Amino acid sequence: MSKSRLEAFSDGVIAIVITIMVLELRPPAGGDWDALRELAHEFSLYVLSFAFVGIYWNNHHHMLHAAERVNGAILWANLHLLFWLSLVPFATRWMGENHFSELPTAVYGAVMLASAIAYALLQTAIVRHHGPQSRLQLAVGNDRKGKGSIAAYLAAVGLAFVSPWLSIALYVLVALMWLVPDRRIESRLPH
Amino acid sequence: MSKSRLEAFSDGVIAIVITIMVLELRPPAGGDWDALRELAHEFSLYVLSFAFVGIYWNNHHHMLHAAERVNGAILWANLHLLFWLSLVPFATRWMGENHFSELPTAVYGAVMLASAIAYALLQTAIVRHHGPQSRLQLAVGNDRKGKGSIAAYLAAVGLAFVSPWLSIALYVLVALMWLVPDRRIESRLPH
Amino acid sequence: MSKSRLEAFSDGVIAIVITIMVLELRPPAGGDWDALRELAHEFSLYVLSFAFVGIYWNNHHHMLHAAERVNGAILWANLHLLFWLSLVPFATRWMGENHFSELPTAVYGAVMLASAIAYALLQTAIVRHHGPQSRLQLAVGNDRKGKGSIAAYLAAVGLAFVSPWLSIALYVLVALMWLVPDRRIESRLPH
Amino acid sequence: MSKSRLEAFSDGVIAIVITIMVLELRPPAGGDWDALRELAHEFSLYVLSFAFVGIYWNNHHHMLHAAERVNGAILWANLHLLFWLSLVPFATRWMGENHFSELPTAVYGAVMLASAIAYALLQTAIVRHHGPQSRLQLAVGNDRKGKGSIAAYLAAVGLAFVSPWLSIALYVLVALMWLVPDRRIESRLPH
Repeated sequence: MSKSRLEAFSDGVIAIVITIMVLELRPPAGGDWDALRELAHEFSLYVLSFAFVGIYWNNHHHMLHAAERVNGAILWANLHLLFWLSLVPFATRWMGENHFSELPTAVYGAVMLASAIAYALLQTAIVRHHGPQSRLQLAVGNDRKGKGSIAAYLAAVGLAFVSPWLSIALYVLVALMWLVPDRRIESRLPH
Repeated sequence: MSKSRLEAFSDGVIAIVITIMVLELRPPAGGDWDALRELAHEFSLYVLSFAFVGIYWNNHHHMLHAAERVNGAILWANLHLLFWLSLVPFATRWMGENHFSELPTAVYGAVMLASAIAYALLQTAIVRHHGPQSRLQLAVGNDRKGKGSIAAYLAAVGLAFVSPWLSIALYVLVALMWLVPDRRIESRLPH
Repeated sequence: MSKSRLEAFSDGVIAIVITIMVLELRPPAGGDWDALRELAHEFSLYVLSFAFVGIYWNNHHHMLHAAERVNGAILWANLHLLFWLSLVPFATRWMGENHFSELPTAVYGAVMLASAIAYALLQTAIVRHHGPQSRLQLAVGNDRKGKGSIAAYLAAVGLAFVSPWLSIALYVLVALMWLVPDRRIESRLPH
Repeated sequence: MSKSRLEAFSDGVIAIVITIMVLELRPPAGGDWDALRELAHEFSLYVLSFAFVGIYWNNHHHMLHAAERVNGAILWANLHLLFWLSLVPFATRWMGENHFSELPTAVYGAVMLASAIAYALLQTAIVRHHGPQSRLQLAVGNDRKGKGSIAAYLAAVGLAFVSPWLSIALYVLVALMWLVPDRRIESRLPH
């Protein structure tokens, strides 16, 4: 089964998710500097979520590029990932509207955690379909970065009830860690 | 006529439909556990509708993969299916806002019923275009699963006026039945 | 220059336009039959606009299929068409909210008129790029259907100030005339 | 690494951005000529933003067409451009709601400025990946038009605090300058 429609559909959903968040950015009531300053918090949250979804698109791009074919299990694992990613605008908005209070910050982390797990499941489904000696398996290796992200998100969900700002620091840290594209796969691809 | 643009356009519409539903999920007013608990009903409804639309995308993917070419009748049958699918977010929202009361639950079922009929019509148009000895005809067979879904949705629309929860149980059952990808087609495709 | 990205971008915009209209369909306040009945007008308007945009996608599909290459003028003529199509949800909503009163019904017709003219301009740009002996020129012929639509929309805009229902009857008539795919082009394509 | 998914994802995001702006065009409260006249300002703003985003899509199309391959840096530079473009509907709405007052007009220009810089960065990343003797480098030349746009936007941001109408005149001028597709690249492409 060809992977092109899976890529096209994922591109569509991720493109919508990433741009839907713009709709959340309501213009402030007035037109002066105070109005703009009030927006700063929400804007930085928007940047974080944009980077988060952008990272997933980037890694998804790399992973599917290394894949050669897909099967039914991969289609469903992919839809499962898209489900969690589509909740990012909701979680972003709830956290923004409640000024980074405890529970919304934890829920934001839970959506990130579920996305990271869904990505790992998709990766497993693809690697299993291609065999243990495949280029993809070699490129992924023991996936330290993926496991580390899951652990960090797990910690962030708990820390949100201690101090939401600790969680947000973790979200930013994980995003920075991923902003470098996954060279493990790229470096093993033919040019 | 090539099928690639029909696939691309369908992917676009289905991707938008599936993510538009996120916009329906309004963040609760407060930021505490009560607010989150109130969301539980609506959230599970969102999961059901996501699965419903995801199943259609998956089956559409399989069916079009088996198709080799399209004609004008197929284009229109496809637009007709997309029309009903695009009503899913509306029906989901109406049912959610009215706490699963009788009529909205029946209307939700009617949209699912119309989508299932539209899918069957599209399948018929494709099979007719490829001939009775085509791979697709063999793969579809007598389409017991499709006919069963139509019967179940028909029953669910009526049952909504007896007890909406019976209808919802039927919606979930049909979704579970389809969550396994259509092996009839997949098993007959060359690898 | 290849036509594939022009097709992909057009598919994206048209898919969004056609599904954005769903967002206009606000669920009624209550959950009973009266609430549903109130929706009937708006729903039939949604069906009309869906058919209108669907017809454009279909004809666009046929026309671009017959085209072999694109140039800068075609890119801009295409963007111009997409601009007018993207105003359809706005015009639909305004007409629906004002219960088919005179001016909104005329504006709805003006958007349809501008779309039809933009389509004719795009067709001219493509035909000019392919030469007077091209397959596309032969298929289009003297474009009686396109010119007839423009005349009908022009009449409908004026008639809206006499009786909006006359205009709506014309909108429906033109849509029915186009619901048959453009056999002029299809019949001349190799199979 | 192939450029097709980068093109598809960019097409998706730009298509959504350009059509999201329609959602900003709220139908006026009444259905008479006064209501329509009130809309005129907002409508012309919508035309400007549509042209602005359309120009980016057009130039992006030309530039990627000339590119032969992409790498990680290009993926990120592209996401960075899409980030700024996705803020256009927000800036358009804020400026429209505040009737072209000083700060919102400057912010609108800042979004345009950031988009122009992001485009220049993307261009640099692509040219660097293809080498100084590449077709793309020759086509871009010293990029007078790109640098001129950045200077004009910079001036417009400052001028907004003198007179917003001067800034808007500059926005329109830059748009007109770009409405001719980039012949530098087109003229050097094989036909």
